[in-house]
Amino acid sequence: MTSKIRIGIAGYGNLGRGVQAAIAKNSDMELVGVYSRRDPDTLQLAQPAPRYSVDVLGDHVDDIDVLILCGGSKSDLPEQGPRMAALFNTVDSFDTHARIPEYYETVNAPAKAAGKTALISAGWDPGMFSINRVYGEALLPDGETYTFWGRGLSQGHSDAVRRVPGVAGGVQYTIPSPEAIEQVRAGLRPTLSTREKHQRECYVVLEDGADENTVRELIVNMEHYFDQYDTTVNFIDAQTLAAEHSDMPHGGFVIRSGNTSESQKQVIEYSLALGSNPEFTSSVLVAYARAAFRMNQRGITGAQTVYDVAPGLLSPKSPAQLRAELL
Amino acid sequence: MTSKIRIGIAGYGNLGRGVQAAIAKNSDMELVGVYSRRDPDTLQLAQPAPRYSVDVLGDHVDDIDVLILCGGSKSDLPEQGPRMAALFNTVDSFDTHARIPEYYETVNAPAKAAGKTALISAGWDPGMFSINRVYGEALLPDGETYTFWGRGLSQGHSDAVRRVPGVAGGVQYTIPSPEAIEQVRAGLRPTLSTREKHQRECYVVLEDGADENTVRELIVNMEHYFDQYDTTVNFIDAQTLAAEHSDMPHGGFVIRSGNTSESQKQVIEYSLALGSNPEFTSSVLVAYARAAFRMNQRGITGAQTVYDVAPGLLSPKSPAQLRAELL
Repeated sequence: MTSKIRIGIAGYGNLGRGVQAAIAKNSDMELVGVYSRRDPDTLQLAQPAPRYSVDVLGDHVDDIDVLILCGGSKSDLPEQGPRMAALFNTVDSFDTHARIPEYYETVNAPAKAAGKTALISAGWDPGMFSINRVYGEALLPDGETYTFWGRGLSQGHSDAVRRVPGVAGGVQYTIPSPEAIEQVRAGLRPTLSTREKHQRECYVVLEDGADENTVRELIVNMEHYFDQYDTTVNFIDAQTLAAEHSDMPHGGFVIRSGNTSESQKQVIEYSLALGSNPEFTSSVLVAYARAAFRMNQRGITGAQTVYDVAPGLLSPKSPAQLRAELL
Repeated sequence: MTSKIRIGIAGYGNLGRGVQAAIAKNSDMELVGVYSRRDPDTLQLAQPAPRYSVDVLGDHVDDIDVLILCGGSKSDLPEQGPRMAALFNTVDSFDTHARIPEYYETVNAPAKAAGKTALISAGWDPGMFSINRVYGEALLPDGETYTFWGRGLSQGHSDAVRRVPGVAGGVQYTIPSPEAIEQVRAGLRPTLSTREKHQRECYVVLEDGADENTVRELIVNMEHYFDQYDTTVNFIDAQTLAAEHSDMPHGGFVIRSGNTSESQKQVIEYSLALGSNPEFTSSVLVAYARAAFRMNQRGITGAQTVYDVAPGLLSPKSPAQLRAELL
């Protein structure tokens, strides 16, 4: 019998918690420990597991097959990614699209030098959506790709709303335009403006004495975040915010519409309807940890992306089993 | 500048015609020739191209980088696949699901021995749908996968209808049940019977003097093909059949519905709406020809399936370009 793939979790926020839940659903994996910058004794784990300080990670290089990096893309991963790739096979969800090429290079060099495999930018976008953009382009070279996000809670836009003076709390949902999606699905290959593709919907709790109209104007006119969109702002009380807006649903659509000949239209659509954005992202990270481990065993080292991972490597089933059962 | 990938087409039915159209849409490829069992002088090509007898293929081994096998799964490919895999890198759309493991073995041995790469069972099912069944299972191990086909013209069922005594012509459309799809999309993970998943719709032209009710009963009660489904039979005239039912649309849905935790449901959906089933399949074959060529250059030989092909290998873009533009 084969031994299990030994996983370490670095960072225990929403992602780390989701990774722990996902490992429990994959019987070929086991959790070695959760590593945190916080005092491990104060870490509240969803399920019991060994807790360690990140400072001891260097002593655990022989105990961990793949370290899943659950930090944020803004400040955690740019520092942690290259450093950990010199010690472990790693998987992360680096999601600042514009900086991926640079991040790839900083991780590739140490991973290559150490003979480790560093799978970067896994998740759903970047991740599964990226894969479907490539499949779409390759299968229908004469076509257009459309990515729609939502309906879902946007963390970045919710943060922006909460920074507005007079706002005590709030969330923002990104909503794809049904009319735009309908045109794309019909194979019309429309040219869509930012405003035509998505709308934004805010649920806001006001601070005492703050003025609704002032806050609404500050939000809907906020540069980059809202000024290019049709935005609605709904004012609610703190109880409603807590009761109805604490889940983190998200999802969206990647649609490729193209022609294989003048008269024949073809439409490929990939969509996600996620009850929990971080739990799904975590589940993707864990499947890619399996692939990273196998690639490293085959001598494929350095930084890798989802584009480099053959689908079969994600499955616990053998190639022969996949051919017999799922092809 | 890189030279183009040189493609040969073996067989010139609907698939071969579609492959020729698809090559024209991929600027990194060129068509070396169309090889047919028919007298090449009688071949009517959609676009001018060199025409040859299949008998000369053995003399063209140095001229072709990938040979795309456009024959049928019933009798052509079982004979042609192993034979051609000993001479060329090949791609085919072998689609008899139950016999794929056996076909894999018969192609793998000669391909391996000759240092060739034989990509089998590409297309959309098997093919893109198979890939999405694996992605779905791997990303949401606690879940159910549902494959729905249609609305689309089924070649096998249309053939069965046309064999019924009294039928002069006809087609059959497979229609996925909207109610079943709705339940699956809602994450309810229902158990669905064959009858609940798909309906069948036939358009039939009667022979002179044939009786509608007799023909209808013979169709709807036909074992394996129709008896487990709700089938409607519409009688039309030959002109209507030719005018409204000569396209070959198809498509369908692969939906994975699962839980990442007790309270969180996640739904992944991949769908195809194909104006022309053979043209889309051909377009997939051509993208996988690019991958087969690259895999062979890297020393990956023997039989391969879509599960073995990393998404990036399908794109004419470089890995760095893909990371910068599409990830």
